[in-house]
Amino acid sequence: MLHVLKTFRENKEILKGTFGVEREGLRVDLCGNLSETKHPKLFGEKLSNPYITTDFSESQVELITPTFNSLEEVYDFLNSLYNITALELEDEYLWPQSMPCNIPDDENIPIADFSGEKEGEKARDYREKLHKKYGGKKQLISGIHYNFSFNEKIIRHLYDSENTNESYKAFRDNIYLKVVRNYLRYRWFLIYILGGTAVIHESYAKECVKKLQEISTGSFTSEGALSYRNSECGYRNHIDLFPNYSTVNEYVNSIKTFVNDDVIESHKELYSQIRLKARDNNDFLNSLSKDGIDYLEIRSTDINPFDKAGISLEDLKFINIFTIFLLTEEENNYSPWQEEALYNQNIIARFGQQNVMLRNNGDQILKEKWALNILNKIEEINKELNLDHENIIGNVKARVLDPRLTYAYRISEMVKENGYINGHLELAKKYKKEAYKDRFKLYGYEDLELSTQILMKEAIKRGIKVELIDRSENFISLSANNKVEYVKEATKTSKDNYVSVLMMENKVVTKKILKENNINVPRGEEYTSFEEGRRNAREFSGKPIVIKPKSTNFGIGISIFSKGADEEDIIDALKIAFKYDNTVLVEEFIKGKEYRFLVIGDEVVGILHRVPANVLGNGKNTIEELVKIKNQSVLRGKGYKTPLEKIDLDENAKLFLKQKGLKFNYIPKLNEVVYLRENSNISTGGDSIDYTDEIPKRFFDIAIEAAKALKVNICGVDMIIEDYKEENSNYGIIELNFNPAIHIHSYPYKGKERNVAEALLKVLELIK
Amino acid sequence: MLHVLKTFRENKEILKGTFGVEREGLRVDLCGNLSETKHPKLFGEKLSNPYITTDFSESQVELITPTFNSLEEVYDFLNSLYNITALELEDEYLWPQSMPCNIPDDENIPIADFSGEKEGEKARDYREKLHKKYGGKKQLISGIHYNFSFNEKIIRHLYDSENTNESYKAFRDNIYLKVVRNYLRYRWFLIYILGGTAVIHESYAKECVKKLQEISTGSFTSEGALSYRNSECGYRNHIDLFPNYSTVNEYVNSIKTFVNDDVIESHKELYSQIRLKARDNNDFLNSLSKDGIDYLEIRSTDINPFDKAGISLEDLKFINIFTIFLLTEEENNYSPWQEEALYNQNIIARFGQQNVMLRNNGDQILKEKWALNILNKIEEINKELNLDHENIIGNVKARVLDPRLTYAYRISEMVKENGYINGHLELAKKYKKEAYKDRFKLYGYEDLELSTQILMKEAIKRGIKVELIDRSENFISLSANNKVEYVKEATKTSKDNYVSVLMMENKVVTKKILKENNINVPRGEEYTSFEEGRRNAREFSGKPIVIKPKSTNFGIGISIFSKGADEEDIIDALKIAFKYDNTVLVEEFIKGKEYRFLVIGDEVVGILHRVPANVLGNGKNTIEELVKIKNQSVLRGKGYKTPLEKIDLDENAKLFLKQKGLKFNYIPKLNEVVYLRENSNISTGGDSIDYTDEIPKRFFDIAIEAAKALKVNICGVDMIIEDYKEENSNYGIIELNFNPAIHIHSYPYKGKERNVAEALLKVLELIK
Repeated sequence: MLHVLKTFRENKEILKGTFGVEREGLRVDLCGNLSETKHPKLFGEKLSNPYITTDFSESQVELITPTFNSLEEVYDFLNSLYNITALELEDEYLWPQSMPCNIPDDENIPIADFSGEKEGEKARDYREKLHKKYGGKKQLISGIHYNFSFNEKIIRHLYDSENTNESYKAFRDNIYLKVVRNYLRYRWFLIYILGGTAVIHESYAKECVKKLQEISTGSFTSEGALSYRNSECGYRNHIDLFPNYSTVNEYVNSIKTFVNDDVIESHKELYSQIRLKARDNNDFLNSLSKDGIDYLEIRSTDINPFDKAGISLEDLKFINIFTIFLLTEEENNYSPWQEEALYNQNIIARFGQQNVMLRNNGDQILKEKWALNILNKIEEINKELNLDHENIIGNVKARVLDPRLTYAYRISEMVKENGYINGHLELAKKYKKEAYKDRFKLYGYEDLELSTQILMKEAIKRGIKVELIDRSENFISLSANNKVEYVKEATKTSKDNYVSVLMMENKVVTKKILKENNINVPRGEEYTSFEEGRRNAREFSGKPIVIKPKSTNFGIGISIFSKGADEEDIIDALKIAFKYDNTVLVEEFIKGKEYRFLVIGDEVVGILHRVPANVLGNGKNTIEELVKIKNQSVLRGKGYKTPLEKIDLDENAKLFLKQKGLKFNYIPKLNEVVYLRENSNISTGGDSIDYTDEIPKRFFDIAIEAAKALKVNICGVDMIIEDYKEENSNYGIIELNFNPAIHIHSYPYKGKERNVAEALLKVLELIK
Repeated sequence: MLHVLKTFRENKEILKGTFGVEREGLRVDLCGNLSETKHPKLFGEKLSNPYITTDFSESQVELITPTFNSLEEVYDFLNSLYNITALELEDEYLWPQSMPCNIPDDENIPIADFSGEKEGEKARDYREKLHKKYGGKKQLISGIHYNFSFNEKIIRHLYDSENTNESYKAFRDNIYLKVVRNYLRYRWFLIYILGGTAVIHESYAKECVKKLQEISTGSFTSEGALSYRNSECGYRNHIDLFPNYSTVNEYVNSIKTFVNDDVIESHKELYSQIRLKARDNNDFLNSLSKDGIDYLEIRSTDINPFDKAGISLEDLKFINIFTIFLLTEEENNYSPWQEEALYNQNIIARFGQQNVMLRNNGDQILKEKWALNILNKIEEINKELNLDHENIIGNVKARVLDPRLTYAYRISEMVKENGYINGHLELAKKYKKEAYKDRFKLYGYEDLELSTQILMKEAIKRGIKVELIDRSENFISLSANNKVEYVKEATKTSKDNYVSVLMMENKVVTKKILKENNINVPRGEEYTSFEEGRRNAREFSGKPIVIKPKSTNFGIGISIFSKGADEEDIIDALKIAFKYDNTVLVEEFIKGKEYRFLVIGDEVVGILHRVPANVLGNGKNTIEELVKIKNQSVLRGKGYKTPLEKIDLDENAKLFLKQKGLKFNYIPKLNEVVYLRENSNISTGGDSIDYTDEIPKRFFDIAIEAAKALKVNICGVDMIIEDYKEENSNYGIIELNFNPAIHIHSYPYKGKERNVAEALLKVLELIK
């Protein structure tokens, strides 16, 4: 078959299937005990959140990625889900190990609570039955489920290359069934490579623990153990079940027989190492027959405690190429192959760290030899199809040749040193810290504006389905409860009407409307010719005014007369301004500082003041050193991927300092603030400082009134306040911004981080 | 005072006061009888329509302009109001004469009906009292009311130049009172210049008619008559009333005395030739005392039948400079000046065409001598202040020197020739024709987009107050019933949400959403690199496709394979397309013609197909001649001020014809259509053809569904339909346009004119 695959024009396309991962994990308290708290409320309803839910237990989180066409995306998303979840857990951690933490007796293990949810009772009943039948402890075992289907174009290519009378559907089903059978035959290999449950805690099922040796307080294992989760101590059906995998219909019939015989309650209770999945998994058997196999689910994989995501990207990629091996590998007609495969699984799970003897089509074979044999074939696939996976395969080979490189071995070592509970807790703490450091990021979406990433992240947390509609335009859709909202650039939504946006876009109109609503705006006139301005100059003489070209930025052509000027000076200033624009504004000068009020719905969600890039002296370090230190903040980066930008000590800064007689090697005194440029833009290293809790309520009301005057739901109100500490201070609104950045409020340089995204989701009526 | 005015820097500013005009006019049937129909429903409630209402009678329309700072704007608006009204009257005309048409007896004159209106009963009661007291016939006399106040800067300048202890308010009131007194003294002059009621109809008040000579059937006058409206036969108080005009308080006291003595019911019943106006005319006397005089209303002016507006722009401008004369002219302290002024008015009204003897401060003076005396002073003002009104003053002087140039004389001549009724009817017919010719225009707003003009016009008709918010951006506000709607470019409104607009702006997103809603769109793929396109080329081989750069227009870089192409050709086409853009679309080719569906609310308001500039042969004329003929249509103009553009026989057309072996002097055969260019843009002379009544309902539904899918209220849906006659024809939606032009539907080249503006006002909930 490999030669047929080779004929497909773009060999690498074979790696682009459809992938999704589910990862379970227990919530534990600060001491490593199973959490007794409820699943966090913010995650919404368990049965409708497509990303974060619970499995069997209330304390057993399940993270589910959407499907992607690359494993990089899956891995990024899984990491993001981890971060979102970990940061929502107060005084708790996500247990980074498939085998449970310190758990109570069966009767005290909290079954997931679905009260108030649609279909909640059914979900609860099902879990109660399982609890009764298998016990609660085993239900707490967590794992990684790897879902995949091949690139459809490849299957089509194989079909086209074969001269067959079969229907495409039958051909396709047979392809998948072959992969399933081969998976079962070779699963021992994947368990060996990825096994990470070599130790169990004393609180785990007594019948397992009692056979083992204690290698550290409360931590038990046995010589060569590799994956207790995949051993008889793991979660299995009471009887070994061998469905017929020869055709879909035979498979369906087997399941029906198992159910009729009361061995299992439904197809869901068949705990196979790989599962066939249907398009409609709620009507599984019918859909499987009718629509064929939709995708497969590999369930052998233990959580890898050494990766935050629970599985490394390399291992995900290896599974991918491993499934191609399963696809190409010819089958032997040895009939008791399922029994043999189960035997091999058990041997590997219990003694896999040793070079055990396995059985291959009735013959004995050493693990290492067989493993190398498989790897040789995978290497050939890699080479023939130019898949560039040499390194990945090489690393796996190393684990074959030296069992001390297996996760199982490394876990045993860690447990010996730090204990089972503490060793894993340390890892969980480390991951939570990393999550906090990256709290503003949504991995895999770093090309999007930060504001969009933040909104997506908050939506994902709350189980609102997020889709990219036009990635390059930061255009997303958010859906929940059969309701879709489209959002562009985080704050362009259906909640604002078009003409209000156009009014905000036009400063003249904005000011007109605000004025009509008795809201202070800098009074002013607009002149379209110097002559017109000159004629009216006298009216402004003696008054504090600003004269500025209508459209230029960065202070070019602007004259500020904060104490007023005579007619002649005003005329001169007009002359200057008209050099830069055909329209010139003569505006009242309002003393004070400018604040950005972020209004969402009826609320001011945050108030910021922005200051130019600066350093604060400590009497020891030079400006250059202080910048270096300041730039170390995780909030600072390059290219708008972080809430703040790194300060650049560039020519501009040099010139700016020179004007003040300073150089980069100047050592500012303790508490001396040295500004490094004129403008306060965040993009040039400026600081955002949260003032939300400092500003009197009156100004909140004014900002909200301004938004209401223009019938706006989401906007940034730029207000100058003469003295913010003074409730009755003079103020003036400069403009309303219809696409305010949210990240500057979410992650300011100084002050409280404001959950702007939550406010947005509320105004979108996606959450309450 | 003139020398003080001269010291004001910008002399011409004195002409920029605040102006507004009211014009009354009777509705008449096709025979010149007073209409018995109701005031048109579309004009809305009489008491709330600020532009078009009724005066005393149900058949007496009153047109009211807003206030403007130039008389050009007033005149344009008045003309527009005339057009709007005239075109709304079916089988009726607006009577172009102050004195009534053929009217019935008093008891059959319909008093204005205010049923159902707020304050309607009060308005009706008032009119019924007038009817009883003065009779219905006199109430039907119509006129022009000229409202004005001086440029406030000028009054301020006068005040600043005077060394006075007076308050500004008192100073200002005294200025206006002086003008009022002088107006009363010199009103005879304005009546002479503008008088136009030299003839009355036999159906008018018997006591007047019986004294006169019949100069044409049913048309009566007497030697030298000039303005019956301003004579004792006009509308006057029963007793001559002479209020005290020395101060505002004295004036207020006089009115109170008149009312207390039961001479008049309220200030409104004082039929003075000039009226003081208060800021709050509902609380007139109090407001006058408290706020001072707000503006003045000159009421002597007869309708000029020879101008559609009822008064010419020149005459308006003359009144303006006349009021400056009144302002500057010193007063004589002759005490019975009011009696003398009334005497002069009566003489001029009855005998003004002759060189009668008038009285000036007790002395006798010939009309012509006094008039020239006044004109000399006005000429001096014009000269000293550089007002450039020489021509206007010169024309008025000619009327003084030769009474045969007066409107009164010209009307008499017209009546002698065609009769009173027919002569005026002919003029009314002519004006209605002119109105129809200009039906798409809103005079004075020709700088705005035609779509905006059309919307404003419809709003004005219905009494929705229109204001320009930002003229250069076609930004207007529409208010009615305490509700304001802002509209930019006619179709950008509060009724569309922002994100829907952004979705429409993005063709990829639009198509995605439409597809999700099971609406046909050309299927297609987007490629961001040639390599990517090349890899997928085979998928499209053999299918009808279009390959095009994402963003270029005018067909550049586009390849159309309407019958499919092989892989190689597709790759070549991709190569070409990638020369013009980084993103290339490969789209299904849909056969057929493109139609623009204009969706507003739940309705398709119009469907257009656009065809390139063309001529239809008649077997006689050359292409060049046919173009000339076609360009004569009033709908065609230059620079987007008309619904269609004139066809340009330019180089492009020449080249295009050359390709077909044709020249401009080719004579197309009868019914031969010769296209003159490739593109169907209206802007290059293309034709818009209305198909609203041709297209099957299914496509209406599809267009509405498409709009609903994107949650849009106002949009243009561009749909290709293979065969519009076929209900089940294949179709595909190309794009949704969020700022569709409306004028192309309102005034298509062929087919029914659609009232799109009405649909817009409905969706804005400004009308029902």
